[in-house]
Amino acid sequence: MSPESVPVVEKIMDANDQVALLNRKILDEAGVFAINIMASPGAGKTSTILRTIEALASEVRIAVIEGDTAPVTIDSDKVKAVGIPAVQINTGGSCHLDAPMLTRGLEKVDLNSIDLLIIENVGNLICPASFKLGSHANVVVASIPEGDDKPYKYPNIYRGLEVMIINKIDLLPYVDFNMEYFRNGAKILNENLVFFPVSCKTGEGVSKWTNWLKNRIKQQKELAK
Amino acid sequence: MSPESVPVVEKIMDANDQVALLNRKILDEAGVFAINIMASPGAGKTSTILRTIEALASEVRIAVIEGDTAPVTIDSDKVKAVGIPAVQINTGGSCHLDAPMLTRGLEKVDLNSIDLLIIENVGNLICPASFKLGSHANVVVASIPEGDDKPYKYPNIYRGLEVMIINKIDLLPYVDFNMEYFRNGAKILNENLVFFPVSCKTGEGVSKWTNWLKNRIKQQKELAK
Repeated sequence: MSPESVPVVEKIMDANDQVALLNRKILDEAGVFAINIMASPGAGKTSTILRTIEALASEVRIAVIEGDTAPVTIDSDKVKAVGIPAVQINTGGSCHLDAPMLTRGLEKVDLNSIDLLIIENVGNLICPASFKLGSHANVVVASIPEGDDKPYKYPNIYRGLEVMIINKIDLLPYVDFNMEYFRNGAKILNENLVFFPVSCKTGEGVSKWTNWLKNRIKQQKELAK
Repeated sequence: MSPESVPVVEKIMDANDQVALLNRKILDEAGVFAINIMASPGAGKTSTILRTIEALASEVRIAVIEGDTAPVTIDSDKVKAVGIPAVQINTGGSCHLDAPMLTRGLEKVDLNSIDLLIIENVGNLICPASFKLGSHANVVVASIPEGDDKPYKYPNIYRGLEVMIINKIDLLPYVDFNMEYFRNGAKILNENLVFFPVSCKTGEGVSKWTNWLKNRIKQQKELAK
């Protein structure tokens, strides 16, 4: 982005935040807990969503909004295949979801019949960090083969983040990855960050993440009463 | 990006292309072959650059320009540690390099004393695709653990691309990755694309890539005569 375009973008971002507040209000009134899942391409956002559905679908009513930069339905088809409603938002080449896109997505979801809304953002570690959607928690899925230096190199996404899922721990024996170095890099940016090392391939560690999520959904229901 | 911002961005992109042409002229006059390396975070751009330096530095004079979204010198330090000049461009949070940033980078490189300029773009599969820099070849580094569906989900980066390096083939035994499905997805978008499956960890396949590159550098020298 060139320096000349910054003021325009700042105006867009202010407007975005206003719409994000409206989205949050819509979600709160319906008693829906919403999470915004962000990651690099291929870190395992969709795999995390499928494992989350597998763990929670018997007790929690779930819907998914899928953000994609291209008009392909690979991810939303996977979600629908396990019986969960999925709405696709094609960003038309843009590198992130924004709050107005989510507003249009929310119109297509029956919010009164769900407890949890999972929003899968576009695969990108940079741009989604700048656009609030109105969700209750921001979640980043990192993955072992991406390397342990990512918090140092892509710091913005770690700020305003609540949960860090570290996926593909089944690959730890084959990849140089220093978990302490990674965690320290993220903790410097965000000392309250909660970490869940998982393998969406084997299922290891997933229940800790889904238990955390179940508690947060319950809290949201209490607040809505 | 909201629809309202599109005309502004289009103007910026037109201006960018003009500057990219000027960059190309500067490179051509110096007889320097320049490659623009793009990838998701953690696919192995820096590892590819280090392997390329290792293979070619005895016969090719190389410099590297490192694009980073944060003011960290992790990658440029690695390049300098092997004795190669490295210039860092901090994009100030922006998600890609653009042609004016490269112009400023070129001013800091002694172009008359090099044959090959390697530009490491910001780790991002979406935004860098829209901004020409003036380099002679666009190279994407994909990686096995990112998954075989990436060409279908992030199509824009594959257009206007010359080389696809598929890194981390040492992880093939541990990851579900259908090479034919991946290649077909990329070929649909770009039928002339050249593929180099490599492991920057073990060195497997790297020489095929560096031989291709050596030939292109030679051609560029011939043209400059």
